[in-house]
Amino acid sequence: MTTPTPSGTTRGPAEPTSDARVLLRPLAPGYVTVDGGLWRRTADVNRAAAIPGGLEQLAKAGNLRNLEIAAGVADGDAIGPIFADSDVHKWLEAAAWEYAREPDEQLLADQLHVTSLLAAAQADDGYLDSVPALRNVPRYSDLPWSHELYCAGHLFQAAVAQVRGTGRTELLDVAVRLANHLVVTFGDGPGQLRDVDGHPVIEMALVELYRETGTRAYLDLASWFVEARGTGLIEAHGKQPTYFSDRVKVRAATTVEGHAVRAVYLGAGAADVAIETGDAELLAALDTQYRAMERGKQYLTGGLGARWEGESFGDPFELPTDRGYAETCAAIGGVQWAWRMLLATGEARYADQIERMLLNGFLAGVSLSGTEYFYVNPLQLRADAHAEEDRSPAHGRRGWFDCACCPPNIMRTVSSLTGYVATADGPSLQLHQYAPGTVTAPLDGGTLHLRVETAYPDEGSIALHVEEAPDGETTLALRVPAWADGATLDGEPVTAGTYARVTRRFAAGDTVRLDLPMTPRLTSADPRVDAVRGSVAIERGPLVYALEQPDQEAGAVVDDLRIDVSGGLSDEFRADLLGGVTVVRASGAVVPGPDAGATTPYGPAGTPSSASDQPTEPVRDVTLTAIPYYAWANRGPQPMRVWIPTNAG
Amino acid sequence: MTTPTPSGTTRGPAEPTSDARVLLRPLAPGYVTVDGGLWRRTADVNRAAAIPGGLEQLAKAGNLRNLEIAAGVADGDAIGPIFADSDVHKWLEAAAWEYAREPDEQLLADQLHVTSLLAAAQADDGYLDSVPALRNVPRYSDLPWSHELYCAGHLFQAAVAQVRGTGRTELLDVAVRLANHLVVTFGDGPGQLRDVDGHPVIEMALVELYRETGTRAYLDLASWFVEARGTGLIEAHGKQPTYFSDRVKVRAATTVEGHAVRAVYLGAGAADVAIETGDAELLAALDTQYRAMERGKQYLTGGLGARWEGESFGDPFELPTDRGYAETCAAIGGVQWAWRMLLATGEARYADQIERMLLNGFLAGVSLSGTEYFYVNPLQLRADAHAEEDRSPAHGRRGWFDCACCPPNIMRTVSSLTGYVATADGPSLQLHQYAPGTVTAPLDGGTLHLRVETAYPDEGSIALHVEEAPDGETTLALRVPAWADGATLDGEPVTAGTYARVTRRFAAGDTVRLDLPMTPRLTSADPRVDAVRGSVAIERGPLVYALEQPDQEAGAVVDDLRIDVSGGLSDEFRADLLGGVTVVRASGAVVPGPDAGATTPYGPAGTPSSASDQPTEPVRDVTLTAIPYYAWANRGPQPMRVWIPTNAG
Repeated sequence: MTTPTPSGTTRGPAEPTSDARVLLRPLAPGYVTVDGGLWRRTADVNRAAAIPGGLEQLAKAGNLRNLEIAAGVADGDAIGPIFADSDVHKWLEAAAWEYAREPDEQLLADQLHVTSLLAAAQADDGYLDSVPALRNVPRYSDLPWSHELYCAGHLFQAAVAQVRGTGRTELLDVAVRLANHLVVTFGDGPGQLRDVDGHPVIEMALVELYRETGTRAYLDLASWFVEARGTGLIEAHGKQPTYFSDRVKVRAATTVEGHAVRAVYLGAGAADVAIETGDAELLAALDTQYRAMERGKQYLTGGLGARWEGESFGDPFELPTDRGYAETCAAIGGVQWAWRMLLATGEARYADQIERMLLNGFLAGVSLSGTEYFYVNPLQLRADAHAEEDRSPAHGRRGWFDCACCPPNIMRTVSSLTGYVATADGPSLQLHQYAPGTVTAPLDGGTLHLRVETAYPDEGSIALHVEEAPDGETTLALRVPAWADGATLDGEPVTAGTYARVTRRFAAGDTVRLDLPMTPRLTSADPRVDAVRGSVAIERGPLVYALEQPDQEAGAVVDDLRIDVSGGLSDEFRADLLGGVTVVRASGAVVPGPDAGATTPYGPAGTPSSASDQPTEPVRDVTLTAIPYYAWANRGPQPMRVWIPTNAG
Repeated sequence: MTTPTPSGTTRGPAEPTSDARVLLRPLAPGYVTVDGGLWRRTADVNRAAAIPGGLEQLAKAGNLRNLEIAAGVADGDAIGPIFADSDVHKWLEAAAWEYAREPDEQLLADQLHVTSLLAAAQADDGYLDSVPALRNVPRYSDLPWSHELYCAGHLFQAAVAQVRGTGRTELLDVAVRLANHLVVTFGDGPGQLRDVDGHPVIEMALVELYRETGTRAYLDLASWFVEARGTGLIEAHGKQPTYFSDRVKVRAATTVEGHAVRAVYLGAGAADVAIETGDAELLAALDTQYRAMERGKQYLTGGLGARWEGESFGDPFELPTDRGYAETCAAIGGVQWAWRMLLATGEARYADQIERMLLNGFLAGVSLSGTEYFYVNPLQLRADAHAEEDRSPAHGRRGWFDCACCPPNIMRTVSSLTGYVATADGPSLQLHQYAPGTVTAPLDGGTLHLRVETAYPDEGSIALHVEEAPDGETTLALRVPAWADGATLDGEPVTAGTYARVTRRFAAGDTVRLDLPMTPRLTSADPRVDAVRGSVAIERGPLVYALEQPDQEAGAVVDDLRIDVSGGLSDEFRADLLGGVTVVRASGAVVPGPDAGATTPYGPAGTPSSASDQPTEPVRDVTLTAIPYYAWANRGPQPMRVWIPTNAG
């Protein structure tokens, strides 16, 4: 895979080695361009506003100052959370991938300046983590909470991004020194520490560093961290072992539990280990866990994590809408895990998962402006919501957080989004995600160059224009999402939830057209999901919809809306609204509360005098207008709901 | 009110002064005996097992050791939470009221021993709080979290209980020294601290100490603490001001918010201040707040606090069943607040509230054995529930907690339960709660002595046999609960939600009979309570019912049960079950999950191929058997639910 790409980048994130046990091989971000539509708008504000603004926020919040103090160029005490460095590392990764997308002198200069601080802050033996060091926390003395390996992991990911995205090796040098220090420090050998970090990420980061450097010891240490988890290392650290995904060994687990971000980062890291070591048993266990998550612990938006307490997964089917946590970072980790499972299994469902998480639970985490964020992404906000917690959506979006894990995590994800679009393998190209732009794939027999013409996800027509084709037969595999019943490929029906394949000798000028049905649809939930009983959601294509207050008729408070499920749905593209969205309209009603004078919300069931189920005001018919969930809360915090009670409920 | 009582106690908790602005005046606990039924069983295990066991737990957990160290009779470091002393104080209060119920040498000796430790631990200037002192936390330097005034408040309550319940003044002497120190320390004067405790209780405790001692400065300081709240004193202390009930002034607040226990303790304390100072404006504000709580922030069980995060109230109508917090202590604080509002207003609804909270949300917090506790009291536990948090009901009940606020709080409440039964005023006796036993009321014209014969809450017939009557006309006011449509007094219809009154010249041998309809009933909720849409609950009399797994037919998992709302309900007293309970049976069905092979819980609405709303297995008719909610989890942690989906849902 040595064909030059538009930006010169030849490898993207999480690209397995040639020995890895995978069915699909990534196309580096540089092989794919997106030149319009939703993803491009998102990338543009990420570049123009989020990344420069992020560096300012890191300066303002003290993260950079911590590094300056550790580097000996400033004085003072470390401020911020113990894991403050990790936000710097995520920003560095974002900047590196963004530079790969389109080089820019300032972007490189900023990266190298921050990199130089890290290099200067690094201890002689390779240890590097400014806040614990400045606070004189004995090294690795409190790994369940100190996040030292978590910070190291994000540094490794940034270093790999920097070398792949900019060709510069300064951060890689720092990373290698730190990784070598970890290899010496952790393990089962004499004098070594047998311990794991409370917050996974080191696992996938070490594998990534192994992929970049070829140093097998890094893969071995990643594998060791995966195997050491669940062996009782994290006991009595203020939370149950479940919180840390430490109750059972990874290969014995059958579901996800505890802190959602930790759990999915661990899943992604273990998948990297399984892929690179050819560990089919571990991979099968991860597939089981992922399926359990998808089956009972995931929101319709792809959001992960039902509970505020411990930012954690709930019990199966415990999926509250109002207090759903669905941390933005959990959607990111979910995408990372799904991507690795996609490479390993080639199953379309994992690409469906990536799309669901990216376009809904993830994208809702950032404003249309790119500079304001949600940490948590519930599926409902009531009219009378108050904002008790700093990260409550009732506040509206925020420019930054005290625990600022999400904003730079969003930035690095957006700047590497093109890495999730396509894979190639021998004579085949797989297209997993659809956006207007180009795909340049080095296949057996030569380069396949496609221009993708589509207004997806607003419209369902995706035309692939061949501009250059390899010699010999080539296979185009196009994901047909599971929701796309009725999809056609060049007019012929194709099966939803699979890859539709065309194998032939392509030539410049050929066109292949996939048509996905974009009729809005109503979705209901397993009755075990108690939180949404008697309700339906609106979806259209890959997008989950929401009723938000500003779009409703006067006086029709979102809390009191009902949908008429037999009333049909209509849609309309609104270029003027929220950066350009397709709205969906439905018939419904305003059902006022039953009795404004009621003293309690409870009363006898089914009697006219009931305080509970018989409205005292007449029902008023209204048209409901839904917008894509990702676009909510761009007009201030407003009442919103994804799941709409039916007129039968 | 100087008539000797069975135990000699002449005053109970929260008895207003003769100058107070109240409509009703408490009958001291000693004027009421309960000699059978549910309350008596609860009191018996509280005396025989909980209180002695509590002292052992306080020794084991280190609370007593902390006092020994502070008293100079042991060495070591303080252990446990900063507010560890408060659990000792609550135990002292429990022991004092229990002694009043029936004197016992050991019970007195244990109290006096612990009291002597407190006296020895007290600083010369009156300050007393062992853990902050032993940890060298500068006094009152971190009041939002240090709980120093919270501990003082519980000490004052214990001291008042000790003098009223045992006649001993040792603890009162300690309390007065501490209170005098607080009077000097806090206020607006030169050199005084203008600050409030993060956790209210000092307010009601100071008023109580004022009532006992007559020292007006204590009432003034309580009033000062109430007025100082909401003036911006608690900012930037890790939580929003809402958490501490510090967003607005108490007299400006229109609802409850934040940490539920803190909020209701503040409500109770402010009510005490309003009563004693005759502050009608403050009382009206508290009435508004209480109504808002009852209208949108209270569970059917009376439970308070929707959120684990911050143990706090949610938004209006945010009342999740599975993750409902409903801390046992919040129900206790709710009872205390409602009791004060009842005295002030004489409104039956407040007595209804007390009954709802006591018999459901509170009583569920303690096992039938009296020795195992729930900290949180949700309305649903799923079959696959896992116990991530230490206090999760999925663990089952626990003998103690690291944060052990609830167990001794339960003990003191049970030992003073008879204080909530009746009030008297001039020629009138008000009966608020019903249990078999006796009521001795000093009324104008002489003593009214009643024998109460009832099997309430299993049966609805309450016979009051007059054994001694005053001269002249006497009024008996009997609460007719709001749910008791069809109630009769001596055969004549009376209005639910009011006090039924009989005024006449009574004579020994007279009987008055109140009949409350105990037909089981179905209850539904305001549609704004999203969490229980499409569901109903079973109630019978004052008891909320629950489906618990052990009572269901084989293979009928509680998670999958539906109720046939037109199928009728039947009931049966089961002496053999759970200490003797009336079970309620309903027609229903098992509706298996729609598709065991489904990969997600979401699918197209209303189509036969739906993954969501069309079961693939046949519905099976079953009989549902419900038990009183308070009795759940006495057979290990089991699937349970209060709200049952209807066959229409």
